[in-house]
Amino acid sequence: MATTHHKLIILGGGPAGLTAGLYAARARMDHLLIEKGAEGGQVLLTDWVDNYPGFPEGISGFDLAEKMLAHAKRFELNSMFANVLSMNISQKPIQLELEDGNSLTCDSLIICTGAHPRPLDIPGEKELTGKGVSYCATCDAPFYRNQHVAVVGGGNTAVQEASHLTKFADKVTLIHRRDELRATKILQEKAFANSKIEFIWDSTVTAINGQDGVEELELLNKNGDTSTLQVDGIFVLVGVLPNNEMLPLTELKADTGGFIPTDIETRTAVDGVMAAGDIRSKEVRQIINAAGEGATAVLAAENYLTNLN
Amino acid sequence: MATTHHKLIILGGGPAGLTAGLYAARARMDHLLIEKGAEGGQVLLTDWVDNYPGFPEGISGFDLAEKMLAHAKRFELNSMFANVLSMNISQKPIQLELEDGNSLTCDSLIICTGAHPRPLDIPGEKELTGKGVSYCATCDAPFYRNQHVAVVGGGNTAVQEASHLTKFADKVTLIHRRDELRATKILQEKAFANSKIEFIWDSTVTAINGQDGVEELELLNKNGDTSTLQVDGIFVLVGVLPNNEMLPLTELKADTGGFIPTDIETRTAVDGVMAAGDIRSKEVRQIINAAGEGATAVLAAENYLTNLN
Repeated sequence: MATTHHKLIILGGGPAGLTAGLYAARARMDHLLIEKGAEGGQVLLTDWVDNYPGFPEGISGFDLAEKMLAHAKRFELNSMFANVLSMNISQKPIQLELEDGNSLTCDSLIICTGAHPRPLDIPGEKELTGKGVSYCATCDAPFYRNQHVAVVGGGNTAVQEASHLTKFADKVTLIHRRDELRATKILQEKAFANSKIEFIWDSTVTAINGQDGVEELELLNKNGDTSTLQVDGIFVLVGVLPNNEMLPLTELKADTGGFIPTDIETRTAVDGVMAAGDIRSKEVRQIINAAGEGATAVLAAENYLTNLN
Repeated sequence: MATTHHKLIILGGGPAGLTAGLYAARARMDHLLIEKGAEGGQVLLTDWVDNYPGFPEGISGFDLAEKMLAHAKRFELNSMFANVLSMNISQKPIQLELEDGNSLTCDSLIICTGAHPRPLDIPGEKELTGKGVSYCATCDAPFYRNQHVAVVGGGNTAVQEASHLTKFADKVTLIHRRDELRATKILQEKAFANSKIEFIWDSTVTAINGQDGVEELELLNKNGDTSTLQVDGIFVLVGVLPNNEMLPLTELKADTGGFIPTDIETRTAVDGVMAAGDIRSKEVRQIINAAGEGATAVLAAENYLTNLN
């Protein structure tokens, strides 16, 4: 089986990875970007991106991903499709094992594998994602002006975003599987004091119905009762999961959620290994800061490589 | 004199400030963005921006600034032109004193005042900025394929960028006012070993000549000799200066260069005060990471405000 070496490998082709690729290619570094599926990452799941600065009218997720890829390719991005199964970062060169049996080695690595929202795994969810099913209130709240939306979840994000959504929606129904919220007290108090927020306790959503958009939710109470709720949209805010299956989490000192801590220059606990975008242990996961971190990571890699020999 | 209060004030309207403004306006926060001159910051000084992801063919600095401003305005950015002379951040609300005698107060503040390259302050420099005079090799190196460029400076940035420029330029002449470099040894060794780099020691540039672009430099040796050097471009890399005149540097624990340290969520040493973009104490100053930090800062401000009452 073949082994190929590069000075820099960028793992993942979402906004962080594509920006890292753009910067690495533009700096003529010996680099390789590895993407498992399609370049763009979660952006591809986003119907309309209204908050990537520089596109005043917004841009479709597909178009933004395509533009970012074309941008990096213009500077001769070196990329391949492959599935990385595991890696050894405790020695140099770093070694990556691919699903096809081949190996890759590198002197420095930028991890941009991203994250994904924890899904409900119920009928209609996948089909209506981007058509009323959303996993990001910051991104999509303004689309629901004067409408009725549901929020699923009981943690800080769900409760905070329910309050945030009332700036746009007429009515927000928060659906939680328990009879009390997990969110901090102050967030709870704000939500309870907000007349636009209604609560459905002890209930889970079992299906999302609708033709071209979300129309109705099917609910199940823990006492066995079923009911339906008419809504224009549903925000699923039950957590974010890191794409970290291939990462050596102990060496990278992953946080309890499995995300990778870094310093402000995106350097991880392992010399020569950077992490950028949603895989980072951080509070804000947006396209624009993922892209920014991709640029920072390449310059951190350049500094590391410069001091290497 | 009047005093007006806002929950959030954003100080500065470059990429960090405009992105913060976009996010704050879009979240319908009670906000105000204050800009001294023209929105866009240093981007306005950049002839062509080739590395802001999403614009594969590049975009003029002017157009990018205009798009970012239009973007924030579409979500009803609240902005004003004013010159902030001083501020008191050691009590809440934070108070800002304006040149016109009025005051502003706020619960949280995002500092995006930016930085500026230390200029040489010589004839021709201002006139030819963006036309062959550059302060950013990462940004502009690819424009000098097969050309002859000068680099002024002797620190890490100047020496590293001289090496970087040889990937594009045929010849790089490094001009330094002393007879040895300040840069770390390894960078020096690389530069000395690079046959494309020539050195002019003990010399300063006294003028930059050219009609529509840089054509010639006038040099002065410390022994009094003068000479000229034909070049296609000149990179002035003698340091970056923070725009911090109005900031309480002691409370913000500014670094020795006058930049503001923050954590990865852009929070400064003072509760409720964030810093984003070039004013941050950091290694990488690019448009894309300034913008990303602006988004991060708004969500840090939102969290701060949520826990405030």
